[in-house]
Amino acid sequence: MLILNNDEIEELLSMETCLEVLNKAYQQLADGHAVNRPRTDLYLPFPETSGVYAFKSMEAGLFDPKVVALRLNSDVIRWEDRGDRIVKDKIPKAPGGKWVGLVLLFSAETGEPLAIFPDGVIQAYRVAASSAVAARYMAQEHVACLGMLGSGWQARAHVEAFCKVRSFEKVLVFSPTQANRESFAEEMAAKVDVPVEPCADAATVARQSQVLVAATNAITRVIPPEWVRPGLHFTCVKPSELGDETVARADRVVLHTRKAAPENYIAGMGDERVVAHDPLEFLNAADKDAVERPKEPPWVDAPELKDVVSGRVAGRTSPEESTCFINTIGLGLQFAAVGGAVYADAKAKGVGREIPTEWFLESVHP
Amino acid sequence: MLILNNDEIEELLSMETCLEVLNKAYQQLADGHAVNRPRTDLYLPFPETSGVYAFKSMEAGLFDPKVVALRLNSDVIRWEDRGDRIVKDKIPKAPGGKWVGLVLLFSAETGEPLAIFPDGVIQAYRVAASSAVAARYMAQEHVACLGMLGSGWQARAHVEAFCKVRSFEKVLVFSPTQANRESFAEEMAAKVDVPVEPCADAATVARQSQVLVAATNAITRVIPPEWVRPGLHFTCVKPSELGDETVARADRVVLHTRKAAPENYIAGMGDERVVAHDPLEFLNAADKDAVERPKEPPWVDAPELKDVVSGRVAGRTSPEESTCFINTIGLGLQFAAVGGAVYADAKAKGVGREIPTEWFLESVHP
Repeated sequence: MLILNNDEIEELLSMETCLEVLNKAYQQLADGHAVNRPRTDLYLPFPETSGVYAFKSMEAGLFDPKVVALRLNSDVIRWEDRGDRIVKDKIPKAPGGKWVGLVLLFSAETGEPLAIFPDGVIQAYRVAASSAVAARYMAQEHVACLGMLGSGWQARAHVEAFCKVRSFEKVLVFSPTQANRESFAEEMAAKVDVPVEPCADAATVARQSQVLVAATNAITRVIPPEWVRPGLHFTCVKPSELGDETVARADRVVLHTRKAAPENYIAGMGDERVVAHDPLEFLNAADKDAVERPKEPPWVDAPELKDVVSGRVAGRTSPEESTCFINTIGLGLQFAAVGGAVYADAKAKGVGREIPTEWFLESVHP
Repeated sequence: MLILNNDEIEELLSMETCLEVLNKAYQQLADGHAVNRPRTDLYLPFPETSGVYAFKSMEAGLFDPKVVALRLNSDVIRWEDRGDRIVKDKIPKAPGGKWVGLVLLFSAETGEPLAIFPDGVIQAYRVAASSAVAARYMAQEHVACLGMLGSGWQARAHVEAFCKVRSFEKVLVFSPTQANRESFAEEMAAKVDVPVEPCADAATVARQSQVLVAATNAITRVIPPEWVRPGLHFTCVKPSELGDETVARADRVVLHTRKAAPENYIAGMGDERVVAHDPLEFLNAADKDAVERPKEPPWVDAPELKDVVSGRVAGRTSPEESTCFINTIGLGLQFAAVGGAVYADAKAKGVGREIPTEWFLESVHP
């Protein structure tokens, strides 16, 4: 069984590969040649430390390659009182100040475990790559400018991914801090071989772009409704960056997956499966009954990315349409597709550490 | 991170420990100090080989010890035409002709992975131990005879477990094959220090017993309704060994968990979550629409084992009551409890192989 680390995966994985294997995986999902178990989150609140432990998992299997991936996160979450505000964060409590996110890959032909590796690099690539797969079908064919709102690692991955599916003449980037947008522009221009310009005004970025991406940490709306104009394709890394009113302006909406939130299992909640609550907000509320359950979003019945990839639904029917792709929630499918590719490549190149597969097998009939 | 094998676990694990930690885990579940994600099964049918790949997973976390366990099975299932009948079986396709069932244990304090080990030994112990925990609360206090229907590994584990929660004067065992019941009697008598007698007639076993256990491979009813008489406690390893009519005869019914079947995700079934079908029967049907969905069993609203362990529901209120415990489906909780105990014991005794925990951690902020 192969053990890989994030550095090795970073070295092995190209955005081209991500785009190719994800496209193929969505096609398989549409054809009934893949299966996906949606994400579940399991919460153990520890009131004595005002902390929470969260275990997340999702799984998926493919016909080609015949693999199953389980992706899990084992997170310690704490609320810290920073005087003016309370900040919640995933605390790297594991030895050496680290986090725990893993992909386990299995053969669907023999059942055997093939590999275990951290999820970090794949996690970053797959969000941007799935958005770019959507843009391949949904953006206008001829585009001049990619507008980027945000300058973090998600924004970096998105610029790289989107430049693989369309030929842009330039990229315009807005980020509230001047130094951030400038260093982003410099770094990304070298990477994508397209001029990347920093811009101090988000509305200007939106106005000049045919493809507009919100990839921010913001917890409020980033793209207001009035920026949606004919021909624009716009997307996000989380639905709150758009908001329902902005989404409603699009002529055509596609979802990564219709399921917009994980199923939450919370210790102390009995057998109830809490889908609608934000479990952290819920857990911290003094009066739990007062926590409002968010309503189902109005766009919940829009088609999914797999429908567009398979051609069952058009991504765009004219240059004048405005189109919107909502990155609702991740799928195990992404880890099966990208993880399967990383594994095959690592084996071919002899990368990683092998430990005896035998340790993970048994002679006891199940 | 610790790697253990089934032999080491067999050596470390005692039935007493199983009973103790399971009792504590059900109590925690009742108190809201544990959380459990029910089992999901993911199916990839490969029509070209008339085979199916199945990936099963379940998870649970406890407050004490603060651990989370993920239990998974990665199974290759084949139908074999043996002339007179078609047999379905889990095929040991992994290297060396082995199966794949694993428990991954995590710390809910730091998030770090603590151990990975095969599920086989724990799997056998926990079914019997949970039935025995139920019997501790549900069987009459003074009992003379334990009746065992079946002579396989499940039956062996049940005799051992039940002899820990009640003082029996003897054990009577029925199995259709004389040699099997005789070797079972000889072997188990040495193990539990109680006389164990083989018996050629199941009805006789039932008539003499105050506690009656069906632990068989039978796919039809093992305990008919007329065997249920005042004072009897009876149980099974799967609901079909009892049947609804037999269960209806009991004055008091308790379920391992109310959820009697896993949620099945099947490639080719679209987004539908198939809870009610037997997925294998479904997958093999020529006319899928003709596969009848089983009705919800009439006992589905009976209380659960956790309710009895916590004292919220009585297990028995008089010596005359007939009581029934139905082993509906396994819980991740069992693997968290027993796995947590095995891990602590292995660490204390220096058993197993350590591999660098660092391989399973990451510096990338999730």
